[in-house]
Amino acid sequence: MQVIFCIKHLPTRKIFLFCYGEVSLLFAKRTDLALEAREIFEESGASLPDGVKSREYRQGMAGVTCIDIESEEGERALGKARGSYITVALPELWMRDSDSVFTTAQTLAHELKPLLPECGAVLVVGLGNRFITPDAIGPLCTEHIIVTRHLLEQMPDEFGGLRAVCALTAGVLGLTGIETAEIVRGVVQRVHPSAVIAVDALASRSAERLCRAFQMSDTGVTPGSGVFNARATLDKKSLGVPVIAIGVPTVVDALTLTADTLEQAGHSLPESPMLRERENLMVTPKDIDALVHKSAKVIGYAINLALQGDLTAAEMEQFLS
Amino acid sequence: MQVIFCIKHLPTRKIFLFCYGEVSLLFAKRTDLALEAREIFEESGASLPDGVKSREYRQGMAGVTCIDIESEEGERALGKARGSYITVALPELWMRDSDSVFTTAQTLAHELKPLLPECGAVLVVGLGNRFITPDAIGPLCTEHIIVTRHLLEQMPDEFGGLRAVCALTAGVLGLTGIETAEIVRGVVQRVHPSAVIAVDALASRSAERLCRAFQMSDTGVTPGSGVFNARATLDKKSLGVPVIAIGVPTVVDALTLTADTLEQAGHSLPESPMLRERENLMVTPKDIDALVHKSAKVIGYAINLALQGDLTAAEMEQFLS
Amino acid sequence: MQVIFCIKHLPTRKIFLFCYGEVSLLFAKRTDLALEAREIFEESGASLPDGVKSREYRQGMAGVTCIDIESEEGERALGKARGSYITVALPELWMRDSDSVFTTAQTLAHELKPLLPECGAVLVVGLGNRFITPDAIGPLCTEHIIVTRHLLEQMPDEFGGLRAVCALTAGVLGLTGIETAEIVRGVVQRVHPSAVIAVDALASRSAERLCRAFQMSDTGVTPGSGVFNARATLDKKSLGVPVIAIGVPTVVDALTLTADTLEQAGHSLPESPMLRERENLMVTPKDIDALVHKSAKVIGYAINLALQGDLTAAEMEQFLS
Amino acid sequence: MQVIFCIKHLPTRKIFLFCYGEVSLLFAKRTDLALEAREIFEESGASLPDGVKSREYRQGMAGVTCIDIESEEGERALGKARGSYITVALPELWMRDSDSVFTTAQTLAHELKPLLPECGAVLVVGLGNRFITPDAIGPLCTEHIIVTRHLLEQMPDEFGGLRAVCALTAGVLGLTGIETAEIVRGVVQRVHPSAVIAVDALASRSAERLCRAFQMSDTGVTPGSGVFNARATLDKKSLGVPVIAIGVPTVVDALTLTADTLEQAGHSLPESPMLRERENLMVTPKDIDALVHKSAKVIGYAINLALQGDLTAAEMEQFLS
Repeated sequence: MQVIFCIKHLPTRKIFLFCYGEVSLLFAKRTDLALEAREIFEESGASLPDGVKSREYRQGMAGVTCIDIESEEGERALGKARGSYITVALPELWMRDSDSVFTTAQTLAHELKPLLPECGAVLVVGLGNRFITPDAIGPLCTEHIIVTRHLLEQMPDEFGGLRAVCALTAGVLGLTGIETAEIVRGVVQRVHPSAVIAVDALASRSAERLCRAFQMSDTGVTPGSGVFNARATLDKKSLGVPVIAIGVPTVVDALTLTADTLEQAGHSLPESPMLRERENLMVTPKDIDALVHKSAKVIGYAINLALQGDLTAAEMEQFLS
Repeated sequence: MQVIFCIKHLPTRKIFLFCYGEVSLLFAKRTDLALEAREIFEESGASLPDGVKSREYRQGMAGVTCIDIESEEGERALGKARGSYITVALPELWMRDSDSVFTTAQTLAHELKPLLPECGAVLVVGLGNRFITPDAIGPLCTEHIIVTRHLLEQMPDEFGGLRAVCALTAGVLGLTGIETAEIVRGVVQRVHPSAVIAVDALASRSAERLCRAFQMSDTGVTPGSGVFNARATLDKKSLGVPVIAIGVPTVVDALTLTADTLEQAGHSLPESPMLRERENLMVTPKDIDALVHKSAKVIGYAINLALQGDLTAAEMEQFLS
Repeated sequence: MQVIFCIKHLPTRKIFLFCYGEVSLLFAKRTDLALEAREIFEESGASLPDGVKSREYRQGMAGVTCIDIESEEGERALGKARGSYITVALPELWMRDSDSVFTTAQTLAHELKPLLPECGAVLVVGLGNRFITPDAIGPLCTEHIIVTRHLLEQMPDEFGGLRAVCALTAGVLGLTGIETAEIVRGVVQRVHPSAVIAVDALASRSAERLCRAFQMSDTGVTPGSGVFNARATLDKKSLGVPVIAIGVPTVVDALTLTADTLEQAGHSLPESPMLRERENLMVTPKDIDALVHKSAKVIGYAINLALQGDLTAAEMEQFLS
Repeated sequence: MQVIFCIKHLPTRKIFLFCYGEVSLLFAKRTDLALEAREIFEESGASLPDGVKSREYRQGMAGVTCIDIESEEGERALGKARGSYITVALPELWMRDSDSVFTTAQTLAHELKPLLPECGAVLVVGLGNRFITPDAIGPLCTEHIIVTRHLLEQMPDEFGGLRAVCALTAGVLGLTGIETAEIVRGVVQRVHPSAVIAVDALASRSAERLCRAFQMSDTGVTPGSGVFNARATLDKKSLGVPVIAIGVPTVVDALTLTADTLEQAGHSLPESPMLRERENLMVTPKDIDALVHKSAKVIGYAINLALQGDLTAAEMEQFLS
């Protein structure tokens, strides 16, 4: 069976469209999670190539999956760039429990810290569209980042214990007219951080992972292999510094949900007008407005903990108030 | 074939759950549109009972469907109270075209006006949850209502040409602790309007009707027949004045989408964990934030035109600025 | 020296305009704080009449002032209805310290609790205009109220330990066309609470009291003595149940600031075009957007603590998430 | 009389502090308007130096004042960089009249156009803090800019008639940790525009100019002469391209209002605790939330008209919807 990968640029975010099967393009499933890309590949009946390693373990209530892609075949099979992809899957409970923001952030920080350089200034970039609820994770997250770079420059003695952090909300192409990568590259060239952390909303194939499966990777945010729009890529090659990506899925593509439904019922996805009408739909939890705010806060707190060390919850709020 | 109706109260709105078929409850489809309730009934293979009349015509670019339910059998068949249900279906184009807000409002006003009493004060009630994007149609709509009641009381000479209109955003039970119907009843008893217009977001079974099929009815907002929570009903019986409901679907229930997908593929909806996880999902257009604001504005303008006569677009904005 | 009181209805809220002095109306000062009404009266050189009692004490970092007005002369002198007015003045520090929301709420709750009936349902009403930052204290506060009335009705066993609380954001006359008092009266007649708590933004004469001097009173929200618009009054007489008012100043009237400035420089306020232009101005702290949110949260938490007993900070957030 | 200029960096914006008089620093007045800097200078009794030219004319209902600073003495006298400053003063009426947004924008565009290069891409930068109402003019304005640069790159044939425009909301130092000028410089080096338009909220000394006196200049946004923080300057020297600044005052500094009040009463500003408490206050119109949105829209529309030629009001909304 031949496997074809293609990519679709949605207006506000880039999400993967995996199309596998015959030339007739039977099934189309979109995901930004390496975890799911592996699942979809395996469901096609093919076996994973060399150079794709995977291990799982628990950290408290969370299930952690690490997928390392180390070969070109691995990149092609999963449609993702070489590197490490860590997914922290939380129980549904976390979304209902208000205490859990800080402890969840600690869990994420524990996985995030090894991906970051040990010292040097860090630039956090919030990707996505502030005005579209499920795409607002990035811009909302930057509001929870402890920004210190200017304080360290102005008052190095008072703030000597902190790491230099700055934050940028880069907007989206449709609202700025400038590729996000261009804006980030321009700022990186002025600020010279030791690393960039890019925060973005993701797409999942599975409703049960929405706002619950946080993915971190050291590969940057890259829409695919070299044939694609290289200008749009935020990675070490384009920016000159490591790019760590953090995100959480907030939508399932309606077409993907339909495909999965039919597949589970033993059917393939027919070419029909029904499908075309679903291309502009997304599936979200009913309480998406609240969940997006909560997820953005968790990611922000996790970044603060990974960069600034062992802050208490009270110290965190003190810095951010 | 036996037809069973049941109702589910979602956290923020009441939407219909039509369950028909065998005791095994094969298919579950939710809709607030009388138009779709008729479709679903007809798809079950049964024929419509006496006392359900239906006619269609065009008004400019819009397709108008009027369904009159005039018998108890009709109420049971469609799961909706006796009365008239008018749906104005717009081409997809209207959502892209910024000029069309005013002309669309004129089209709606033309159908709305005959449902309203010819004179007397009117209370517009915005239903739904301001903090959940697809449920915010009602609260957002009240921001576009030309409110005149206080001006007429204070300066009757200056504003003599206008009809008395007041507006209320009633909140939702989870945020107020009070049934919306209780709040509206209390205000109606103080204000004594000649009619209430209730604006609410609806659910559709069909993605192509989202933010495009505006429904108006003279039956109030009532979650079903007498066995249900009578306190929650906003209708002439409970409020003592006619209640005209206006709404537009903003979500498709994910379970309904799944059921329709499987049905079109010749399958029934299996009892599976996949379905349970979908109960908390909704399907919306990708640009739902913008569409909800636009739809709320159209409904507000339509109410103003139906109540205050032939305002120009410029006069409308003048009153609302 | 003759003392004249008059009142001005601002578009969105009622604030007091104290005008004292000769017929030439030398000074005009606006305040909603009984504490400041007493100050202004005393600055006029007159001595306080019988029936105005005042005592002060400290509670932790806060300074508490209780003013009891017990006679008609007292009402006239201070331009406020008979009853108790408790002001909790906080050090400036509280606005900078994020930990202090919960402890400040505990301080307020300690003074608020004795004003409330010991049992029975309570209706919290948020007054003011959500769309005008310094007037949004009331609507924002209701978002922090633990609403329980519907839970107690639906599941009395699970929630038996809680007091029944409901909440209403009543809007403003200019946006609803209905006097706020009419709306509240209508809802009170349906809900039958044992008391109403009315939350509102206030005006102060003094910049240093902005977002720092919280006033509670058992007199309702009443714009003055009987000659004024009685329909607008929210008090025991109009609603049939006790009305406890809570508020904090968010603005100083620009004219009042000007008058105080000139007075301190030994001058009276001249009749000049400069003054007319200042009638539409308000003075606020530069960080008013953040302070309004914080103050609304403190008042909401204080109401929860006064009504539901000794919740921890974590329990509070649990209920509100 | 000796004239001393100094500058104070407020948390979110830079505004001028003119301090003139004896060493005892009697009066302190802040303004961003060249028009008012001239007024304040003249009120000091000194006569304007050579190299400051001024002319006035009417354009419809608006009064236009052009001040050209052409010498070093002129720069020192007014505390502003060499260049042209055009102020369009509108009657109060414009703020009440909803029709006037488009016609006001036409008036501004007429003065703005000659300041801009005739061709080449333009980068519009929104300065200020989105989360502080009177400082949000810049970020809100960018939402009304017709952004075309990406369309021209992707579909040059379809959009050939348009000028390339891109837009950036740069955030504020306290939220990003990066000097705004650094961010803009980085983006300019990637995008290579022919000019930058910088939109910002301003401070006025006079309440009657709030949201009514729009200033445009070809000098960039610069906090003063060479002794100051050169990194913070957005001008041709620092960015390599012309920087046109557009703004409108939204606040009066409370200290400035106090100083003007006392001065009109024949007094000087005493050193007193009253003044220190006023340093953190601002004076704004009571309807500042609505006025800021309206002003941002007018500036956005004016920029579109100056860059894209004679759009109708309907075409403008079409592009922006």
